[in-house]
This record gives sequence, C-alpha cells and structure tokens, in this order.
Amino acid sequence: MAIIDISIVPVGTGKPSVSDYVAGAVRILKNEPGLKYELTGMNTIIEGDLEKLLSLAQRMHNSAFDAGAKRVVTTMRIDERRDKTLTIEGKIKAVKDKLGK
Amino acid sequence: MAIIDISIVPVGTGKPSVSDYVAGAVRILKNEPGLKYELTGMNTIIEGDLEKLLSLAQRMHNSAFDAGAKRVVTTMRIDERRDKTLTIEGKIKAVKDKLGK
Amino acid sequence: MAIIDISIVPVGTGKPSVSDYVAGAVRILKNEPGLKYELTGMNTIIEGDLEKLLSLAQRMHNSAFDAGAKRVVTTMRIDERRDKTLTIEGKIKAVKDKLGK
Amino acid sequence: MAIIDISIVPVGTGKPSVSDYVAGAVRILKNEPGLKYELTGMNTIIEGDLEKLLSLAQRMHNSAFDAGAKRVVTTMRIDERRDKTLTIEGKIKAVKDKLGK
Repeated sequence: MAIIDISIVPVGTGKPSVSDYVAGAVRILKNEPGLKYELTGMNTIIEGDLEKLLSLAQRMHNSAFDAGAKRVVTTMRIDERRDKTLTIEGKIKAVKDKLGK
Repeated sequence: MAIIDISIVPVGTGKPSVSDYVAGAVRILKNEPGLKYELTGMNTIIEGDLEKLLSLAQRMHNSAFDAGAKRVVTTMRIDERRDKTLTIEGKIKAVKDKLGK
Repeated sequence: MAIIDISIVPVGTGKPSVSDYVAGAVRILKNEPGLKYELTGMNTIIEGDLEKLLSLAQRMHNSAFDAGAKRVVTTMRIDERRDKTLTIEGKIKAVKDKLGK
Repeated sequence: MAIIDISIVPVGTGKPSVSDYVAGAVRILKNEPGLKYELTGMNTIIEGDLEKLLSLAQRMHNSAFDAGAKRVVTTMRIDERRDKTLTIEGKIKAVKDKLGK
C-alpha cells in the first residue's frame, strides 16, 4: 500500500483559475468505488496499490488535456512503506498523537 | 497571500517512521498565533504572506536537524495568485462547487 | 512525448548517503537501449512516452526496496506538451537562447 | 551548504511556452557572482547556504509576476546534509562511481 499526492497544473490557458481542470481530474477518483482520497488546498491525496495509483495519476493528467490544455505539469509524491501498512488516517494520527492532542 | 505545501523527510535515521520529525516541525506552526495551516497525510499546507511562509519552511526544515537528522530532504510547492485572494478554504470550495456537491 | 524528473529517497536506512540507491535506480535506465535521460545533482530527467516513463518510474522506485529500504519516498514532476514536441535539449536551448548566452 | 532544485510555472498566460519566464528567473542567478547553478530540462539546481537559496528562490518566483503572470506555481526541493559537504558535482560523482564509469 502506498499513498500519493498529486497536483495537476494546466499551462498556457487564458485564465489563472485552474479549478475546472482540478474538478475534472478529481471526478475520475469520485467514480472509483471504494477508493480512499482527499482533496486538499494544494493537491489530491490517494491511498492504494502503487500500480493502480500511477494509472489513476496518468488518467488525471490526461484529463487536463481532454479539458483543453495544450501543456500540463503534474507533480506527484509517492510514499510507500513495506514494513507496515501505511494509510492517510494512520499517518495523520501518528503525528497528532505526538503533538499531544 | 500565498499557499505552500511542505514535506520534511529526514534521511539516514535508523527507522522508517518519520512522525517524530513531522510533529516537531508542525509544533512550530502550532505556536504561531493566528496562522492558518492543515496537516494532511502527505504534507502540511500553510496560508500566508510568502516571505513569512519561507521563513517558517526554513525553521521546519531546521527542526529535523535539531531532532537529530544528519540529512533532510524538504519538498515545497508555492501557489501564489495576485489577481485575487487565494485561501486554502476558497481553493477547495471552488473545486467542490464544480464537482457538484 | 513527455519529460519527467524523478528523485528516489530511501527512508530509515541508518546512513545519510543515498548514492547506492540512486545508482541502482539509474542502472535501470542505462539498460534501456535508446532511452534519453540525464543524471543531475538533484534528480534524474527522462524523456519519452508518458506511459513508458511511469513504468520506468515504478521500477526505479521498487529498486530501492530491492536494495533493502523499508520505506521509499519518490518525487516526480511530469511536463507534457501536445501542441509541439518537447525534448530536454529543446527546453534548455529555448531558455539559453533567451538568456543570450 | 544545501542544494535546491526549483521550477517556476506561470499559470494563465495564454500560451504554453514558459521559456521567457524561466529565462527571467535564471537571469537573477547569472547576475550573482560566484554562484554555482545548473539549468536542466526540468528545473534549475543551485548550491549554497540555505538562507541565501531561499532568498534567491523568492526572487525567481517574484520575477514571473514581474514578467506579467497573475499566478505562479513554484516547486522546490531542498537537500541539506550537515555531516559532510554536499555539492552538485560531488553528488553526481558518487552515483557515477557506483555505476562504474
């Protein structure tokens, strides 16, 4: 199990807003039954098998072209741990426990 | 006003867990009165004036050395918009509105 | 055609040096006939079809586990343009021409 | 001593090319006597004291607004090691030595 964060930026569109493109990419995740993901202010975080996550990432990246972008810059970070199960919830809990709340 | 996401990874520590280091970095934010930030499963997102954000980023990065790391890899993304006010809440709302919920 | 940069960081290895892991990941690229890639001081840059690049990225990420890491954090940026051919060489040349080297 | 890689992406500019903006950012580095930096196909890599690097990063980010962008997304990775001197050249050499050439 791995967790990725992914951010899709269309380049050369005529306006600074990117929420249309981000919504199009997140819709792909919404349509995946049982998928764990979270929309944050800077990216989308997804939990699952790495091969599946990379396939979703590619579809999200492609969706920005489908929506009209001529160039797309996608940033992704993969965090994978094989000695124990890694989950979005577990990672946040571990830090919050140490912060004492 | 800008938004950054930041992730601190200590390298060469003896164990795969990093939550001690992340908690140490997030404690710096907790101690800043009025600062808007969010802990996610992959990074910390902070909203504010860019100069202040970069200064906080440097302190968070340094805190991992203070906690004993000999090498630290920090990843940061800055999103700044000058034609309108950018907030974590506003960005998420814009996408959710378009997703139709 | 797309270009990616990729950086592999093993976590919890007990020593700050990561060059063994990076060399293991780059060896995968070395063994791909005709592949265009460059090793820089911060990451590896690879040019090609996006599907192939993501498959190589996954193999590079996995190679750090094969080399003994229990946790691996991989950062990747994808730059893809569909209105004209994007190459590492072409991108650098465009900037250098404008700098008037 | 630290090394950063930095990538500046103007958003909403109306055309997919970004080399004008990148050249403007790199010109800031060109004008710093003695600064070690490298332009790659995906970003710019700079070596130096972290406080200075963050100040340069902010000026590079700002230069894209000066050039007309209304929104700028900047991605940065910091690699700092305090048990030995980290240099761009040294990092590449360590990997190449292990690759056997």
